[in-house]
Amino acid sequence: MPRYRIHIEYDGGPFVGWQAQANGPSVQSALEDAIFRFCGEQVRVQGAGRTDAGVHAEGQVAHLDLRRARLPKTLRDAVNHHLGRLPVSVLTAEETGPDFHARFSATGRAYRYRILNRRAPPALDRGRVWHVGTPLDAGAMDKGAKRLLGRHDFSSFRSSECQAPSPLRTLDRLDVRREDEEVVLYAEARSFLHHQMRIIAGTLREVGIGKRTPDDISAALKAGARAAAGPTAPPYGLCLTHVHY
Amino acid sequence: MPRYRIHIEYDGGPFVGWQAQANGPSVQSALEDAIFRFCGEQVRVQGAGRTDAGVHAEGQVAHLDLRRARLPKTLRDAVNHHLGRLPVSVLTAEETGPDFHARFSATGRAYRYRILNRRAPPALDRGRVWHVGTPLDAGAMDKGAKRLLGRHDFSSFRSSECQAPSPLRTLDRLDVRREDEEVVLYAEARSFLHHQMRIIAGTLREVGIGKRTPDDISAALKAGARAAAGPTAPPYGLCLTHVHY
Repeated sequence: MPRYRIHIEYDGGPFVGWQAQANGPSVQSALEDAIFRFCGEQVRVQGAGRTDAGVHAEGQVAHLDLRRARLPKTLRDAVNHHLGRLPVSVLTAEETGPDFHARFSATGRAYRYRILNRRAPPALDRGRVWHVGTPLDAGAMDKGAKRLLGRHDFSSFRSSECQAPSPLRTLDRLDVRREDEEVVLYAEARSFLHHQMRIIAGTLREVGIGKRTPDDISAALKAGARAAAGPTAPPYGLCLTHVHY
Repeated sequence: MPRYRIHIEYDGGPFVGWQAQANGPSVQSALEDAIFRFCGEQVRVQGAGRTDAGVHAEGQVAHLDLRRARLPKTLRDAVNHHLGRLPVSVLTAEETGPDFHARFSATGRAYRYRILNRRAPPALDRGRVWHVGTPLDAGAMDKGAKRLLGRHDFSSFRSSECQAPSPLRTLDRLDVRREDEEVVLYAEARSFLHHQMRIIAGTLREVGIGKRTPDDISAALKAGARAAAGPTAPPYGLCLTHVHY
């Protein structure tokens, strides 16, 4: 069975998340349905990252197996056609070997979290940015961010519903930068815990408004309890930008 | 009566355009309604540019007169509050003199037209870009664009419904640049004719795919007839970025 690797962009807004669930439309099901309408094959589309409800992706990667071989560009165009008005788009498709696994072969994931930091709410970027009207000190946020780099027990920064067997993760990059009216977080790790990026964003916002110091970030990490970190930032500021292999 | 100058951002998608019309919701009416809900005054909000249905703005400017003076920042925040879920946002408000007129004092308008030039349709920028799947030669488009610079009779590049008394306009800037997956047009003029930017975008697309040469653009301009130019590009790729005074 030929295996295909696809690169996908989506607006997470109308979905319950990447993963197929009983309680609403998922990106995974939207793709599987479109493939079925294209060629009549019922396949499982295996994604690299299981993004939450409302989280966007411009760099999601997935693989799927077809019984009958298709030209990758035909697969891409046909799936996009059958996705219709849904805000999901297959950017590229290529044939890959049977050893490639979108999730298990991945060596890193990169996420971006956008905060619109101005008084007026967003009109054009609504649903793409978290609006924080209070001025943020991006320099202090970046200092706090640096306390999270490296291998740590991230128990304070994962959802109470996180099902990962271990809270240990290695954060390879966490930069906070002001870009005009936005404060943007860039993060990279082999993998992330459930809500990890959103809790990091919510906690660093508290550094940005002066409610916490960078030292408090180290203390929150050391505490090893969810209550020690800040609130979970909303999903729509977050975007899966890249998966490394 | 104190006069206020406001800077507005909006998503043109759900509106019939800037200008109040009987056939649906306009940006102008949305602002006037929000001001009425804030202070009970029925005012006219005079905009600098009357954008078409579906056209966006990140730099619209308008003025309005209130009978009772208000703090500009209170006006801004209260109007944003009363705009509620509508994708319109007042970015700044300031008091201005009685001589300032958003439309007649303006010395220039700047527009941007975004073309997403890749095979796959947009998921994240849907409604913000014109999707052109055929590869475009942005260099040729820029050469064609340069033929339109300066003062000309733009009869070929205005809607048959354009009500401007003269088809003469002076185009001060028209650059076409490739920016990653996009081809972006930047234009500046004292004022534009109805559909002028969209007809320019639709005609330059034909240069980009090799259907017209830059010389053909000069010929289309000289013809002085709407039929000599290309089709009108869709509104949602267009954004009013700045108004100069």
